[in-house]
Amino acid sequence: MNIGLLGYGTVGGGVDRILREDPALKVTRVLSLFSTEEMASRYTDRAEDILKDPAIDTVVEVLGGIHPAYEWISEAMRAGKNVVTANKAVVAACYRELVSLSREMNVSFRCTAAAGGGIPWLTSLERVKKNDRVEAVFGVMNGSCNYILSEMEKGGSFGAALKNAQALGFAERDPSADVDGPDTLRKLMISSCIAFNGYIAEDEIPCRGIRTVRTEDLAFLKEKGLKLKLFAYAAEKDGKVAAAVEPAAFPEGSALAGITKNLNLIGCRLQYGGTLTFTGEGAGRYPTAENVVRDLRDVAAFRPAFYADGLQPLHVDNTALKRIYYVRTSAEDPFLEKITAEKDGAYIKTLPVSVPEMHAFLSSLEADGTPVFAAAVPEEEAYA
Amino acid sequence: MNIGLLGYGTVGGGVDRILREDPALKVTRVLSLFSTEEMASRYTDRAEDILKDPAIDTVVEVLGGIHPAYEWISEAMRAGKNVVTANKAVVAACYRELVSLSREMNVSFRCTAAAGGGIPWLTSLERVKKNDRVEAVFGVMNGSCNYILSEMEKGGSFGAALKNAQALGFAERDPSADVDGPDTLRKLMISSCIAFNGYIAEDEIPCRGIRTVRTEDLAFLKEKGLKLKLFAYAAEKDGKVAAAVEPAAFPEGSALAGITKNLNLIGCRLQYGGTLTFTGEGAGRYPTAENVVRDLRDVAAFRPAFYADGLQPLHVDNTALKRIYYVRTSAEDPFLEKITAEKDGAYIKTLPVSVPEMHAFLSSLEADGTPVFAAAVPEEEAYA
Repeated sequence: MNIGLLGYGTVGGGVDRILREDPALKVTRVLSLFSTEEMASRYTDRAEDILKDPAIDTVVEVLGGIHPAYEWISEAMRAGKNVVTANKAVVAACYRELVSLSREMNVSFRCTAAAGGGIPWLTSLERVKKNDRVEAVFGVMNGSCNYILSEMEKGGSFGAALKNAQALGFAERDPSADVDGPDTLRKLMISSCIAFNGYIAEDEIPCRGIRTVRTEDLAFLKEKGLKLKLFAYAAEKDGKVAAAVEPAAFPEGSALAGITKNLNLIGCRLQYGGTLTFTGEGAGRYPTAENVVRDLRDVAAFRPAFYADGLQPLHVDNTALKRIYYVRTSAEDPFLEKITAEKDGAYIKTLPVSVPEMHAFLSSLEADGTPVFAAAVPEEEAYA
Repeated sequence: MNIGLLGYGTVGGGVDRILREDPALKVTRVLSLFSTEEMASRYTDRAEDILKDPAIDTVVEVLGGIHPAYEWISEAMRAGKNVVTANKAVVAACYRELVSLSREMNVSFRCTAAAGGGIPWLTSLERVKKNDRVEAVFGVMNGSCNYILSEMEKGGSFGAALKNAQALGFAERDPSADVDGPDTLRKLMISSCIAFNGYIAEDEIPCRGIRTVRTEDLAFLKEKGLKLKLFAYAAEKDGKVAAAVEPAAFPEGSALAGITKNLNLIGCRLQYGGTLTFTGEGAGRYPTAENVVRDLRDVAAFRPAFYADGLQPLHVDNTALKRIYYVRTSAEDPFLEKITAEKDGAYIKTLPVSVPEMHAFLSSLEADGTPVFAAAVPEEEAYA
């Protein structure tokens, strides 16, 4: 296999290092903004040197972002090349286009590292769904947020925990994709499309991040025996999808509460096969680069297609998705009064309330500049 | 694919039911002791009707036990047929013979359901080890024992919990393979051979079960914030393997302590990729049958070989595997005195002691008819 590498950052450099000793999988060309000694004569700064090179049969895209990743992946496929990517942004944004193009051109299109970092999640999901129905996918899918929340449990502020995460390379310099939820949303969307074999638009899934979490919120939840996580959940029934990304509290002793540091826990509930969960490092150079290389080995061995081929739209309908929340806000509001079950110090425990209604209410407070924090308490069947 | 099914019990019947609607994977012949309506004209009571039928390309062996499973699997492979089995006893006992025969005959040999029931464990292990070194495999690999211990935590006796487990189909009528450890031992052995790419003899691994556990032992551990599990562990370094199966106590809040009911948790520690864990139902009709069917789909799609091909012996050397134990016994013994760190009611907490030495000591007490219970306290690096 002759591989062209689009991008030579953390993941791309890791892929190249893992494959250095491998005679079967050769990285013959490397696109990067600048040349280094490791790239030697393989270096180029022109994508066409990879995309138009007939000797290259497989392209690894680890640039990140949507453009020009989308255009280059498409051009590679149109030239009959297999594509492996770790880039969840482009897979989520251009899911239909890329999956259908890969089928049309009959090339492999793989992105196992795009959801779960080093966890063999998408490959396992692909395998188990072949003879069972996936009822739900769920989990803690962002290592940065999980690291930040774990640090804040020890008493640190959000800002201090974020700085630590950035220093350790667990969070980007611009952390918004992590802490505001889009990264988790993309992984949930990709996992759901594959699990439910259809297309779910990212923007139909309500999504909140962890930016408004304070140390005192975690201490309050701890007294209740609860731990806060950024929780992704999607379930399908009769062609309708219930799905959300939001901070949620889980009882101590549960598997999700036990996921600390930069780890991820991702799972699926099957109609017959029970619930399966997977944990591991959701990010980081080698965990992620290894899943890229495993995809390359799969492509070399048996040229798998994409994980699923269903592209018909599955719409999100969250009317039945109701959760109890703990809410901290100084606002007085008729909606909040209506859903209040009990007051507990600075917090309100709500009655079960529809998730999109709650998100709309929280957004309206935030639009007015009112500080607010809300932690959902998902029913156990959402994660067991 | 034309499939011959050797055995029509819980798993075999499940496989047949899952494949009933599948035009690509046809069960054309069924070997069973008796005929049922479901088998119709596919029924036979002669193995040769499957093994000698040139139209059958793939054999599923779900008889259990070593003989005649070994002979029939071998004959099928020699006839050029692919083999899928869920039978951990025969895979463990005849590992070298079966793996080398499958390579010699260039047929697929798959047994994903033999370790972890419905969990995609062996397929994930196979995939991740291709570009990383597996340092250790570990986990709770027997659903019956885990169910029994979970029931006993609620206050029941071992006998009552065992009866419940049998009534629910989580334990066999003869429960010794589950409760005395051999079932766990076989899964550990198969996982280790694949992970470390060599042959580890079952009888080199020290193994104790949970038969001597009393309700009071679990209550004592609970006061220490610990939960008891039947724990399997194997690590490889410089060609030497440290491995053991024994009851072990884990701190509440840890992933292993949180594994209740009939669930399994299996994991591996990679040199670069961090620790990966997998949970799910380790037994039961559909979880197990689904993994058999997934193996069949893999064979139909890309004819994978066995998960590893290394057969050179890797010897167990446990001299460096030392653990602290909680021991309950009325015996007074110079060895026990030597290793005592402190006394705690009816229990002795030991200094770190070599696992095989401890097992030998416990066996010698049991040989004298002295009641004894011991729970190891593995170091965190054994399971994280």
